[in-house]
Amino acid sequence: MSALDAATAFAEGLFEELRVNTTDAPGITRAAYGAGEEFAHARVRAAGRELDLDEATDAAGNLYLTLAGTTPQLPGWILGSHMDSVPHGGNYDGAAGVLAGLAVVHALRQEGRRPERNLTVMVIRAEESTWFPVSYLGSRAAFGGLPREALEARRADSGLTLREHMERLGLDPEAVARGKAFLDPARIHGFIEVHIEQGPVLERAGVPLGLVTGIAGSFRYRHGRCLGAYGHSGAVPRAYRQDAVLGFAHLVAALETSWDGLEREGLGATITFGEVATDPVQHAFSKVPGEVGFCLDVRSESEGVLERLHAELMAHADGIAQRRGVRFEFGARTGSTPAILDPALRGELAQAAGRAGLRAIEMPSGAGHDTATFAAQGVPASLIFVRNQHGSHNPLEAMRMEDFAAAVRLLLAFLAGRPA
Amino acid sequence: MSALDAATAFAEGLFEELRVNTTDAPGITRAAYGAGEEFAHARVRAAGRELDLDEATDAAGNLYLTLAGTTPQLPGWILGSHMDSVPHGGNYDGAAGVLAGLAVVHALRQEGRRPERNLTVMVIRAEESTWFPVSYLGSRAAFGGLPREALEARRADSGLTLREHMERLGLDPEAVARGKAFLDPARIHGFIEVHIEQGPVLERAGVPLGLVTGIAGSFRYRHGRCLGAYGHSGAVPRAYRQDAVLGFAHLVAALETSWDGLEREGLGATITFGEVATDPVQHAFSKVPGEVGFCLDVRSESEGVLERLHAELMAHADGIAQRRGVRFEFGARTGSTPAILDPALRGELAQAAGRAGLRAIEMPSGAGHDTATFAAQGVPASLIFVRNQHGSHNPLEAMRMEDFAAAVRLLLAFLAGRPA
Repeated sequence: MSALDAATAFAEGLFEELRVNTTDAPGITRAAYGAGEEFAHARVRAAGRELDLDEATDAAGNLYLTLAGTTPQLPGWILGSHMDSVPHGGNYDGAAGVLAGLAVVHALRQEGRRPERNLTVMVIRAEESTWFPVSYLGSRAAFGGLPREALEARRADSGLTLREHMERLGLDPEAVARGKAFLDPARIHGFIEVHIEQGPVLERAGVPLGLVTGIAGSFRYRHGRCLGAYGHSGAVPRAYRQDAVLGFAHLVAALETSWDGLEREGLGATITFGEVATDPVQHAFSKVPGEVGFCLDVRSESEGVLERLHAELMAHADGIAQRRGVRFEFGARTGSTPAILDPALRGELAQAAGRAGLRAIEMPSGAGHDTATFAAQGVPASLIFVRNQHGSHNPLEAMRMEDFAAAVRLLLAFLAGRPA
Repeated sequence: MSALDAATAFAEGLFEELRVNTTDAPGITRAAYGAGEEFAHARVRAAGRELDLDEATDAAGNLYLTLAGTTPQLPGWILGSHMDSVPHGGNYDGAAGVLAGLAVVHALRQEGRRPERNLTVMVIRAEESTWFPVSYLGSRAAFGGLPREALEARRADSGLTLREHMERLGLDPEAVARGKAFLDPARIHGFIEVHIEQGPVLERAGVPLGLVTGIAGSFRYRHGRCLGAYGHSGAVPRAYRQDAVLGFAHLVAALETSWDGLEREGLGATITFGEVATDPVQHAFSKVPGEVGFCLDVRSESEGVLERLHAELMAHADGIAQRRGVRFEFGARTGSTPAILDPALRGELAQAAGRAGLRAIEMPSGAGHDTATFAAQGVPASLIFVRNQHGSHNPLEAMRMEDFAAAVRLLLAFLAGRPA
């Protein structure tokens, strides 16, 4: 068995253990700072011991497994991703990047190769913002860049704060709040994240790998509401209605016309309204609905597009409120800044792909990834997408092990072909 | 104290007992064949005994309290309405009609007047179709007109069938299923229902009473769904999305354009989408929603308008499904037929109002009422609306006792001024 085959089999065994132990039909659930993420960190930590790696954990619970290089005083490479998932998500989102890092180390160990620079597999906490309304929580904490108030954010399912969840796991939230950094950008030669593509682009293009040019930023409203007035569904004439569902539907339709406008100008974004619900306590079949809740996630690689869509959203909401006797409450705005990824590092990865006979295309990422945090810190950073057959953030998410192996091969070719 | 004042005070005491004993903040709840409706029937039955009325109950649990006339062999009058409410509804919807009937009897008793014809206060079961997806359940059963399959309908909250609920109350669902009639249209001289208006028309017009010309029919889908495909909210490009919330929003907006079209032609309807929800098990902040549930209630006094809106709904749904990669499942269609109310009886009520110095306007009813069942049986039937300040089917529903007293006074004037 070749070193690559052995490394892929090693990773495949870990994927299966993760799946079995964090299953939550349909799909798997690995809550940030919850049982599933804990299991995954513990299992990866054990794998690091099997591979005889140096082990460290920072105040926020990010795990670092390091293969010492021949010249450890040089800034090192980090290969990393996260282990948490959305509720009822798939087994590969996040985990593939960590296991790709371990597979690279496994192959280097088997071949008896030792890189010049330290090679660290970083296991990042809490990337999925479905749990805490904070983007890139773990990776920002690693750089000491998490604002103190983020420790008071509550996890959507448990209602406990991030601080409480960290305390339960024996971590050090007060050090995180003080901004204690574990990582120093000057000590990082480069960061590379392998991640399944979360859309259908590679699958439709028939290409196994993508090299990401930039990562979308976002603005988000997690707890929006349209408020009208309840009334009898037959007895209130149209002119007197304050129908919250009608108000909401027109907001959705209006923001879609803004999306049309952007696309006519060749600009890109994604707009998603989700978690829609009338109030189950007060709604009824024969009532005009007086309230509907929703969340809104708008993403773009362009800060200007985000601000334009935000302004149009507010204008649409004002107009609909005036015309329809409803009002909108959006709640707190959260989000993230778009990131441009290092073209030089991407170019070297493209060359390595060429040497290894691997097909890879350049593409943007509509989804956020921890890579954006490293780019924001000035670290040369790259994101490699692996083709997946059924999207992500859903139980049917899929990845072929041969495509995963292609990503591992690309990393090995890159590391081998890049002298210090 | 005048007989009218005493009768109003008697009714006011009953309203208060109903409110206190069926409170379910916000508002009150009197489930059809549930605890609240049971309490109300028992209390009204006791009131019937206080007033020395003859008492009968039919197989479906409708209650009949009769003041014998001087010529009991003549077809009699029925004054009636229902005692059930929507969940978290108001105290007057339904109950006002029953208590108006009792107040009329109370006043006649106090004045020592005995009408020529029997005067029956009918306490009808299960008018609110929020509980069972069946229109005019109790009144249709009284005429033996409930289809057998209606006994297998399940109550929305309990999940038990109508048959099971009837059995629990010691009623006779099998007789209902066989179509056993308690009422004979030939034995009814006329039916009059007092009911709070469930919209704002009387309040805005500054008039206490309305005389209803016709009752809207409906078509209804209680368990509609728009089905798309879940996906990552950032990573799935627009062209590949099958967003169920977008599909639903466009259906709402499209049917509103149909409503605009009707109104331009001077035609009337109400269109209400309610009980909207994405799937709480699968939805998430960062997911394109793959499913949204909704209910739809469309009403009109015109059968033609209902059929036209139904056809347009289906055409809109087909078009949206094709354009957006979603599909709609509407489930079972239910509904009711519009009813025209007897113009002669309404004219006599208008004359009585004039004699009593009461202001009343003619108006349609967008809401369904048991009066429609009597009209469908060929019984001369009238519906009298009482002004209310905060709509109906909500906890803030309101009615002034002076307006209630006006309805009682109208009935007394009508009965006094109408020789056999």
